[in-house]
Amino acid sequence: MKIETLRWFNNRLEMIDQRILPAAFEYLSYYTASSVAEGIRSMVVRGAPAIGVAAAYGVALEALHLSEEPSTLRQAQGERVGFNKGMEEGFKVLAASRPTAVNLFWALQRMRKVWESVAAQTPQQVAQRLLAEAHEILAEDIRINKAMGAHGAALLKDGARVLTHCNAGALATAGWGTALGVFRSAVEAGKKISVIADETRPFLQGARLTAWEMVQENIPVTLITDNMAGYMMAHGEVDAVVVGTDRVAANGDVANKIGTYMVAVLAQWHNIPFYVACPLSTIDLNIASGKDIPIEERSVEEVKGFRDYHWAAEGVKIRNPAFDVTPAELVTGLITERGVVLKPDVQSIRKLFG
Amino acid sequence: MKIETLRWFNNRLEMIDQRILPAAFEYLSYYTASSVAEGIRSMVVRGAPAIGVAAAYGVALEALHLSEEPSTLRQAQGERVGFNKGMEEGFKVLAASRPTAVNLFWALQRMRKVWESVAAQTPQQVAQRLLAEAHEILAEDIRINKAMGAHGAALLKDGARVLTHCNAGALATAGWGTALGVFRSAVEAGKKISVIADETRPFLQGARLTAWEMVQENIPVTLITDNMAGYMMAHGEVDAVVVGTDRVAANGDVANKIGTYMVAVLAQWHNIPFYVACPLSTIDLNIASGKDIPIEERSVEEVKGFRDYHWAAEGVKIRNPAFDVTPAELVTGLITERGVVLKPDVQSIRKLFG
Repeated sequence: MKIETLRWFNNRLEMIDQRILPAAFEYLSYYTASSVAEGIRSMVVRGAPAIGVAAAYGVALEALHLSEEPSTLRQAQGERVGFNKGMEEGFKVLAASRPTAVNLFWALQRMRKVWESVAAQTPQQVAQRLLAEAHEILAEDIRINKAMGAHGAALLKDGARVLTHCNAGALATAGWGTALGVFRSAVEAGKKISVIADETRPFLQGARLTAWEMVQENIPVTLITDNMAGYMMAHGEVDAVVVGTDRVAANGDVANKIGTYMVAVLAQWHNIPFYVACPLSTIDLNIASGKDIPIEERSVEEVKGFRDYHWAAEGVKIRNPAFDVTPAELVTGLITERGVVLKPDVQSIRKLFG
Repeated sequence: MKIETLRWFNNRLEMIDQRILPAAFEYLSYYTASSVAEGIRSMVVRGAPAIGVAAAYGVALEALHLSEEPSTLRQAQGERVGFNKGMEEGFKVLAASRPTAVNLFWALQRMRKVWESVAAQTPQQVAQRLLAEAHEILAEDIRINKAMGAHGAALLKDGARVLTHCNAGALATAGWGTALGVFRSAVEAGKKISVIADETRPFLQGARLTAWEMVQENIPVTLITDNMAGYMMAHGEVDAVVVGTDRVAANGDVANKIGTYMVAVLAQWHNIPFYVACPLSTIDLNIASGKDIPIEERSVEEVKGFRDYHWAAEGVKIRNPAFDVTPAELVTGLITERGVVLKPDVQSIRKLFG
């Protein structure tokens, strides 16, 4: 089954509702920037690359929506205060949806540049141009994932048992996936690999999404709770770790789903290679180190239980940092679409963009 | 609120049903060894010391039960094949209930010695003697926990933020607790401490039991998911770790709830002291090292979700080791009723028993 996390259908954006997977498989439709922002915020869509694509469509949808409004049509070729103001609001609400994912800002910046380049055209023309750009960002994302997959697959030996955390799969991207894309590419290249999926509390992306994706692909997958990763490593049952990332700093520090840092420390402790699948759009050269990456603290409700089922004792305080930062020293290699950067640092990362 | 995890009431053993805490607070009643074994197996009662006490009562209950059967009464002072056979079956079913908890075997052995010492007496007299021994094991457990608490409290500075995993509390013992007993003793000694509780998947003893106990005691407690412990340590929010244990080998290796090993590696990585609260009854001198401690693999159903609420993708394989082993090198100190053993090893542990 080909997983289309986001798709353009009947002049609207459709996104798989990842909150209800794997119990149900449903698409939700989006017509405006603010509804897409809400979809990102509420985790209908998640995963840094997918969020970037969603945000690009959010901008295009806002332009389409505004260009069809009677007030905008009346303005015709003249002054377009309403259109511009609406677009700025769209950018703003999208930018505020998830602070940690750099692809969000990368996509918004790219869409803004396109907008500026056609600012003299009619709102209708602007909207069409922005929509074409969103389509291109989606197609590019899949091409990039496949390139990363090929580079990453070469790192895995035949028979490798690979642990991953959270979901950096087709569902976290426009398709194929970053970390899970590496596994797909390895299998496509004829390697037998098996995956160990951390369940990834509190949102359970591993148990729900990674396990589901791998089952769909017939790639052997074993689910463990997050606190079993050390046991598996100590018992020699993990050959490598591959995870995705939400933002990589200029020095190679990696922000990713909470718990990634623990896996990285454990991998180092057990001499197991720790790889991060990371498209260039996820590297933020404006951030010197991981210390400067903003970490989203999400609602404490998520930790009380899962969905509406709460098990935590009444009256307990709760913390819910959604991400953590893994220092570059713990990263064996960054897998990018331009190749693998071993022992990443400021110089080797800058060279990627050179 | 004084928590009586197990109590003798109306000639039966009553145990708090820990599976339904904290949503409901209920006692279940037990009359026979096999029902107590089922209570241990199904986790109505859990925690190595509490399991030991429960097993002792299981033996006493079986003796009471058998001594009241008409067939046993008819045998009177003569041959008592039926009584002895019934008792042996009781010991066997109790011994099979949870393989990792050494206190279980310790308690059964102690009860067997008492039985042998009064074997010439009537079944009714034997039963009363065994019941008195079970009462004594319960009272001793609380005395031992308070002694451990005093030794452990001295290790915590005023204002300490202490992380714990699973529940080594009053609910894991006859009362007071091992790791949580250290926190209770520290507070009793006038220290301000705050507790960080790992939720402890899959059975959620941290979220349900440790959080509940600390809230009852008005000790500040913050709940995190298991994969946040590294984040908290990296951000300087953890001053010490104190956990309980199910079995300590002669060399100081510590078996405890799955995930303890990860916490120990992380504590070492961040130079945070890692203490294990461990009554002497939990030390198994017959086991040379942690490699020889049997690790229980529990039902995969537990990892699919929580209770009857399942979220894992269909078709995924699942692992569920319930315990892991932390090598002695990672243990800063064992807190026992006879004092703290820093950097435990074969010699220092043997000296404890000398």
